[in-house]
Amino acid sequence: MFHITDIFRSTFICPKDLLTKCGWKNNDQLPDDAHVLFFFFFKFLFLCQSVNAMLLLRRCHRLNPIGLLSIDRNQVAPVVASCAVRLCSSNNDQRFHQHGFSASWRHVLAGLLAGTGVVLAYGLHHHKAIEKSSPLPIISQEEVTRHRSLKDGVWVTYQGGVYDITEFVSIHPGGEKIMMAAGGAIEPFWSLYAVHNQEHVLEMLSAYKIGELKAEDLKKQNTFKSSDPYSSDPERHPVLHANSLKPFNAEPPPEILSDSYITPTAFFFKRNHLPVPQVDPDLYRLHVEGLPRGVLTLSLEDLKTRFPKHTITATLQCAGNRRSEMNKARQVKGLNWGVGAIGNATWSGAKLRDVLLAAGFGPDVAQWARHVQFEGLDKEITGSAYGASIPINKAVSEEGDVLLAYEMNGKDIPADHGFPIRVVVPGVVGTRNVKWLGKIVVSAQESSSHWQQNDYKGFSPEIDWDTVDYKSAPAIQELPVQSAITTPAEGSMIDRTEEMLTVKGYAWSGGGREVIRVDVSVDGGKTWKVAKLKSSDKEGDQTSPPLGRAWAWKLWEITVPLPPEAQELELICKAVDNSYNTQPDTFGPIWNVRGLLSNAWHRVKVKITEDDEEE
Amino acid sequence: MFHITDIFRSTFICPKDLLTKCGWKNNDQLPDDAHVLFFFFFKFLFLCQSVNAMLLLRRCHRLNPIGLLSIDRNQVAPVVASCAVRLCSSNNDQRFHQHGFSASWRHVLAGLLAGTGVVLAYGLHHHKAIEKSSPLPIISQEEVTRHRSLKDGVWVTYQGGVYDITEFVSIHPGGEKIMMAAGGAIEPFWSLYAVHNQEHVLEMLSAYKIGELKAEDLKKQNTFKSSDPYSSDPERHPVLHANSLKPFNAEPPPEILSDSYITPTAFFFKRNHLPVPQVDPDLYRLHVEGLPRGVLTLSLEDLKTRFPKHTITATLQCAGNRRSEMNKARQVKGLNWGVGAIGNATWSGAKLRDVLLAAGFGPDVAQWARHVQFEGLDKEITGSAYGASIPINKAVSEEGDVLLAYEMNGKDIPADHGFPIRVVVPGVVGTRNVKWLGKIVVSAQESSSHWQQNDYKGFSPEIDWDTVDYKSAPAIQELPVQSAITTPAEGSMIDRTEEMLTVKGYAWSGGGREVIRVDVSVDGGKTWKVAKLKSSDKEGDQTSPPLGRAWAWKLWEITVPLPPEAQELELICKAVDNSYNTQPDTFGPIWNVRGLLSNAWHRVKVKITEDDEEE
Repeated sequence: MFHITDIFRSTFICPKDLLTKCGWKNNDQLPDDAHVLFFFFFKFLFLCQSVNAMLLLRRCHRLNPIGLLSIDRNQVAPVVASCAVRLCSSNNDQRFHQHGFSASWRHVLAGLLAGTGVVLAYGLHHHKAIEKSSPLPIISQEEVTRHRSLKDGVWVTYQGGVYDITEFVSIHPGGEKIMMAAGGAIEPFWSLYAVHNQEHVLEMLSAYKIGELKAEDLKKQNTFKSSDPYSSDPERHPVLHANSLKPFNAEPPPEILSDSYITPTAFFFKRNHLPVPQVDPDLYRLHVEGLPRGVLTLSLEDLKTRFPKHTITATLQCAGNRRSEMNKARQVKGLNWGVGAIGNATWSGAKLRDVLLAAGFGPDVAQWARHVQFEGLDKEITGSAYGASIPINKAVSEEGDVLLAYEMNGKDIPADHGFPIRVVVPGVVGTRNVKWLGKIVVSAQESSSHWQQNDYKGFSPEIDWDTVDYKSAPAIQELPVQSAITTPAEGSMIDRTEEMLTVKGYAWSGGGREVIRVDVSVDGGKTWKVAKLKSSDKEGDQTSPPLGRAWAWKLWEITVPLPPEAQELELICKAVDNSYNTQPDTFGPIWNVRGLLSNAWHRVKVKITEDDEEE
Repeated sequence: MFHITDIFRSTFICPKDLLTKCGWKNNDQLPDDAHVLFFFFFKFLFLCQSVNAMLLLRRCHRLNPIGLLSIDRNQVAPVVASCAVRLCSSNNDQRFHQHGFSASWRHVLAGLLAGTGVVLAYGLHHHKAIEKSSPLPIISQEEVTRHRSLKDGVWVTYQGGVYDITEFVSIHPGGEKIMMAAGGAIEPFWSLYAVHNQEHVLEMLSAYKIGELKAEDLKKQNTFKSSDPYSSDPERHPVLHANSLKPFNAEPPPEILSDSYITPTAFFFKRNHLPVPQVDPDLYRLHVEGLPRGVLTLSLEDLKTRFPKHTITATLQCAGNRRSEMNKARQVKGLNWGVGAIGNATWSGAKLRDVLLAAGFGPDVAQWARHVQFEGLDKEITGSAYGASIPINKAVSEEGDVLLAYEMNGKDIPADHGFPIRVVVPGVVGTRNVKWLGKIVVSAQESSSHWQQNDYKGFSPEIDWDTVDYKSAPAIQELPVQSAITTPAEGSMIDRTEEMLTVKGYAWSGGGREVIRVDVSVDGGKTWKVAKLKSSDKEGDQTSPPLGRAWAWKLWEITVPLPPEAQELELICKAVDNSYNTQPDTFGPIWNVRGLLSNAWHRVKVKITEDDEEE
C-alpha cells in the first residue's frame, strides 16, 4: 500500500516545509501546533486508505477532549486545498525534481490531498455538531418531506430526531441507496440493512442532528412503523457463529467441518444477502427467459417430474471464507469469516442443461448467448432481486453439472439454503449459486446486479477504495485452490505426554480441479509432511471423480510426533490441485479491498504443556 | 526437508553418544577420529537427500589427499548397520522415549542409516579402487561377454578399459537401462544418452576398472563403432542458449521473448528427449489405434485434405521452465532452464477430435476410453518410442482445441518441432505435445512411457530420490499460473538520469485460464503496480479469447519511476489467472526433486548507477 508517512519522512523535514514547498508564503498565519494537526491529518490519510473512513471519525471525536484537535481547523482547510492545487500545477517546479519527485508522484500526492477533502470536511462538520449545546428547533414531518434531494437538502428522521445528511450522501458507504430514505424515516431501511445497527453509526448520525420531530408526527410514524423484514427468517442451530444476524450470515465451529465428509445441513454455513423469502411450494414458478420460443414457466412439480433427477456432491465456498486472516494482515471490508464459510453437501435436482434444452437452447442460441443470469426471490427494498450469472458454457456443458437443486443431503432444501430451488454451480464461488431461484435468463450479457458487477471481484493489493475500478476485473467464477486446518484450534494446549499430534482439515479447488496433495508443517513451514486425503467417510475409499469434475472437497488428516523441546508449534497447511496450482505463502501479496479469495497458507499456533506444569 | 544434522545438534551430544544409545558397547574399538568421519558421514546423508549422490563421491575422493578420510572405514560400516538395526528394533527402548523420540522418528533415522549403505559401500569401493596401482590384467572380449547379468557380474568396456560395474547397477541414476550395455561396449549408449559425457562420470567409472581389453578386440570394436545418432540433427540459430546438445535442449535469451507476441520459430525453445528423426513426408503415415473399426492409417496428405484446417495461437511451456531458480533454492535434477523454456506460436492442422471421430470414436467408446496415447517417431536405443498421453475428454472436446499440427507460424513445422506432425495440446505441459507423431492409441490406460509414469510429476518438498513414489502423484497435464520478467536482465545497470524504468515479461496459465492481471513490484514485494497486458502485437488490442480457451500468453509491460535514493532494486512479477489462482511467493515450499512446476515469483535484481559514477 502507498504509505504517505514514508514519503514525508524521506522527503520533507516538517509539515511547515511542505506548505512552503506548496507555495504557502505566510508561515506566520499557521497555528503553532499545526504540526500536531498535520500528524493526525496524515495519519488520517494513511488510515483512510485502508479502513472505512467512517470509523475514523470516532477517533477524531475521542481525541477532542484531550485537546489534540482543539486548534482552529478552518485555518487549515484552505492550506490543504492549496497544496493539492499547487502540486497538480507544479509540473515544472524544479524543487520537486531536486527531491527526485516525478510528475506521477505529484499527482498521487495531489490526489490524496484532494480526495481527503470530503473526509476532513466531514470531520469538521462533525466536530462543530458535537460542540452545539443549545436546544434544537422542533421540525414538522411536512418540512422534513420537502428535503428529499441534494438541491433542496436531504433530511431524514430517526427516533424523533431530524437530521440533515446532505453532506453525507456522497460519502455513504452504501452509495446512493441512502436517497431512498430522503424526506422520511430511516428506521425501515436500517431494519433491512441491519449493518447500521452499530454504536458508531449512531454516533456519526448524531453529528447531523438539526432538530426534533414534532411530537404528533412522531406518533403517526410509530403507528405505521414497518415490521422487521427478518422476523420470518427460520430458526438456526445455536452452534453456528453468526457474523451478521440481519441478513443472517453464520459459520460452524471449524472442528465440525472435519467430523464428517458430508457437512450436516444444520451446520452448513449460511450466507444470505437479504431476508429469507417465504415461498409456497404449490405457487412457486420458475421462469426461463431469453430463448427464441419465449418464456418457459415451470412449477416445482414440473422440475421434479419432467427432467431426470441428478445428484452430485459439491462443496460450496463463500468468496469471503477466511477473510478474518486477510483482515489481520491489513483491514478489509466485509463479514469477518473464519475458515467455516465452506461446506460439502449432496445436491439433487434437474440439470440446468436439460431445462435450457427444453426451453429451446440450441446451436442458433449458442451463436450469441454468453451468460446465464439467475434472479432470486429475495428482494431489496427497491424491489430488485438478488442476482448473478455464470458463463453459458458452464451452464450447458454435459460436464458442467449445474443443477436446479430441490434436495440438499437427501431432503428438501431448507429455507436458509434456497427452498424450494437453488441453482448449484459446482466449482464456482457461492455467490453465483443463487438461492430461492425465481428466474433464469439466457443472455449475451452478464447479470447487471450489484453482486456481479460491483462486489465479488479481486484486485491488486495496491488498489484501495479510492482507486478501485470494478470494470477492470472479471467477476469471480471458479475459485483458487484452498485449504484450512480445522483442528487443533488456534491457541490450543497440547499435552506433551501425548507424544503425537493429529492435525485435520479440508482442501478444495474451484473449476472441478481435484486436490491431489496437502502438505502440513508443524514448524512454521521449515519442513513438510504429506497428509492423508479422504474422499468419503468410508475408510480407505480413494476413488477419484472424473477428471475436471472434482466438485467435492477432500478432508485430510496427519498424525505427527510432537517435536521434542518445542514449546509452541506453528501448524501450516497448503494444498495442491491437479493443475499443480498452489496456495500463496502469505496474505499481503493477495490482499484486496473486499477481503475475497483469501487462500494463503492457513497458520495455527498451539502451545505444548509440560507434565510438570500440570502437577 | 528433513535435516538430519539438526536432530544431532538437538538430541545427541556427540556421535560417540549416538553409538552408545544404539547399543554399541565397546567405545574403545572406535578410531579416535570417528567423530570427523561421522561429521562427513552425516554431511553425506544430508547432501544425499538433495543432490545426485554420484556427484558427492567426487568430494569424498578429493578429501582423501588431505587425510580426512584416511581412517579405516571398514571399522565403521558394521557400526552403521548396527545402528540401523538397533533403531528399528528398539520400540520399547526407554532411552529414546526419554529423549522424546517416538517410533516414527526412530524409523526415519533407521531408514536413513540403512539407505545410506549403498552410497557408503560405493564410496569405500571407490576409495579402494583409487588406491590400486599395480598393472591391470588383459581381458578378452569373449570374457567380457560372459559377464552380462547380476549373477555372473556386469562388465562393460570403454575406450579399451574393462569395468566391473555389478555393484553400480542398483545405483545407476538411469535405472536398469544400464543392463543394455552389459558384456559389451558402453560408447554407443553414451553417444545416445550424452549426459554421460562429463568429467565426473568418467571419474566414477574409473573406480570400477578391472582390466584392459585385449588389443585385437579393441581394434574390432573400433571398426564397428556406431555413428553419432545426433549427426543428422538440424542446424539451430546460434542465439539459442543450449542446456544440452545431445539431445538438443535450448532456449532463447529472455529479451527476445517479449519482442514479439508470436515467438519466431527459430527462437522457440527446443526440448528434445532423443535424436531428431528423419521423416520423408511422402512416406509418413499416422496410425490411429484402439478403436472398434481397427487401425486407421493416414498420410500427411490425408491429414491436410480430409479434415478441416484449424489454427490456434497457443503457448507451449516445458514443465522444467525456470528450473534454474528452484535449483538455487536447493539442488534439483534436470536441465538448468532459465525463463526461456516457453514460447507462443500459431499452429495449424486437423483437429484430433475430427480424426478420432473419423476413426470411429463414439458414445460406445466413450464408455471405456479414458486416455489418448501418443507415440513419437523418435526412438530410444531399445526401439521404444517417446510417448505420452492426455485425458480423453481433452482430446475429444469441441473446446479442447487439440490439433494434429502440420504448420507452425504459417509454415511446415520444422524438424526440431516435430516435422511433419506434432500434436499440439493447448493449455497442457509441453511434454504431452508429442513431436514427430507416429501413433495415436485410444485407451483405458495412460501411456506407459517413462515420461508419463516416472518423470513429469510433482511432489512435496519432503520427498527426495530415496522416498519418491511416482505412483503417488498424477502426471502433469495442465500447468499452474506462471509469469516472468524478460527485461531488464538480472544484474542490469540502470542509469539514474533515465528517471523511469520499463519492465517487460510474459504471463500464462494452463488449462485455458486467461491471465487477468500481472502485479509488478520494484521494491522486493513491499508495493505492487498493475502492468499493462498485451494479447497481440496490435496496439490497444484487448480482445479476450473464449472463456476456458485462453491458450496463448499475455505479454506485459510497465514503466515506473526510479525510486529516489535506491541503489539496487529487486523487481518481482506475479500473475493472476481467471480462476484467481496466484503464484506462490517463494521456491522452498514448491521445491520438488525434479525441479518441475517452478512458478514462484520471478525476482530480478538491478543496480542503479549514478551520474557522478560515470563522469
